Amino acid sequence: MPTYTPTERTQVRRLPKRAVYDKAQVHAILDEGFLCHVGFAVDGQPYVIPTLYARVGERIYFHGSAASRMLRSAGDGAQVCLTVTLVDGFVLARSAFHHSMNYRSVVVLGSARLVTDAGQKWEALHRLTNHIVPGRWEEVRQPSEQEIKGTSVLALDLDEVSAKVRTGPPADDEEDYALPVWAGVVPVEMMFGEPLPDSRLLPGVREIDSSRLKSRANRTNP
Amino acid sequence: MPTYTPTERTQVRRLPKRAVYDKAQVHAILDEGFLCHVGFAVDGQPYVIPTLYARVGERIYFHGSAASRMLRSAGDGAQVCLTVTLVDGFVLARSAFHHSMNYRSVVVLGSARLVTDAGQKWEALHRLTNHIVPGRWEEVRQPSEQEIKGTSVLALDLDEVSAKVRTGPPADDEEDYALPVWAGVVPVEMMFGEPLPDSRLLPGVREIDSSRLKSRANRTNP
Repeated sequence: MPTYTPTERTQVRRLPKRAVYDKAQVHAILDEGFLCHVGFAVDGQPYVIPTLYARVGERIYFHGSAASRMLRSAGDGAQVCLTVTLVDGFVLARSAFHHSMNYRSVVVLGSARLVTDAGQKWEALHRLTNHIVPGRWEEVRQPSEQEIKGTSVLALDLDEVSAKVRTGPPADDEEDYALPVWAGVVPVEMMFGEPLPDSRLLPGVREIDSSRLKSRANRTNP
Repeated sequence: MPTYTPTERTQVRRLPKRAVYDKAQVHAILDEGFLCHVGFAVDGQPYVIPTLYARVGERIYFHGSAASRMLRSAGDGAQVCLTVTLVDGFVLARSAFHHSMNYRSVVVLGSARLVTDAGQKWEALHRLTNHIVPGRWEEVRQPSEQEIKGTSVLALDLDEVSAKVRTGPPADDEEDYALPVWAGVVPVEMMFGEPLPDSRLLPGVREIDSSRLKSRANRTNP
């Protein structure tokens, strides 16, 4: 079972029993999510920016436009932390203290590189697009050379990685199980609504099947 | 209409038309969300940690346990960035380039203080609990002095704040409107599932009404 090797920086110290270094589990979390929060520091001030990402093998590609402040200030090769969090449920215990959340999160540390090779950038944008809606890239107008140039994509290798996972029911203090209060888990799930067609849609265009988005969950990229 | 004053650090440079500094809008985003990503730097390496938060007036309280590395290394008063992102929809354009996301995000910069006053900590934990499930604090066992001591809570003032909001349909290049491809928005929503009762629930305990969690959205704290 291949695993990431914990480093001084990715060793989970708080609640270590929730720590996961197994590559397959880390990949599954990354492939189910689509939004990451990227942290970088400029003059000692941390910034945390939401952006879209996709995993390809042992690498993550993410949209760099949101990180334009980072690119301007820290330049290529900046140290970043990329975090993905999936919320699975609220854990309601019999005591306020033991309330918790079921979640799966991945933290990746490393140096983010600007993707400059046109072919690699094309491939990264392809994966970013199809990570949201499988097959989307093949049905829309693909980018012009100018558009490829106008998009910044960053790459981060999956090298220094840790995950944390909490599952299951609340863990109450023994004496609190006698309290007549509801306890358990309220599941949380991301749902996709009825697609809202653009007002300038051509007549006869087939509506998108939103199950294509739902299929993103429980799907693992190669 | 009270607003936050943009600083050099919170002035939105990328797509400035999406910038929001209006306090009411910022508060509404913070009150609808519950999960934040807190960024801090230790020896130049940024870390981004997911944790729960609640707003009280012009202050955010967040669970400090997740930030134990920060507290150990940077101590009290560390510079942080706290980011909240609500995903509202996937924006599917006729070209790969114009694909986007509808979202509302808030970025708060500042110095996080450890809450040490027992009364303020009690109030913060009260708000954190009831922010997830309104009225929960009043129906469960409230914390002992020991539990209060064993929980770390951080406070961050809403002072240097910006928000970014994207809404509406895709914005395609004029010539692409002639393409026979579906375009529009697929709404994304966080849903709460059927509550899963704990196996040791006492008989006759009334099931939790999960609409209490749903009511969190569109609700504004005082």
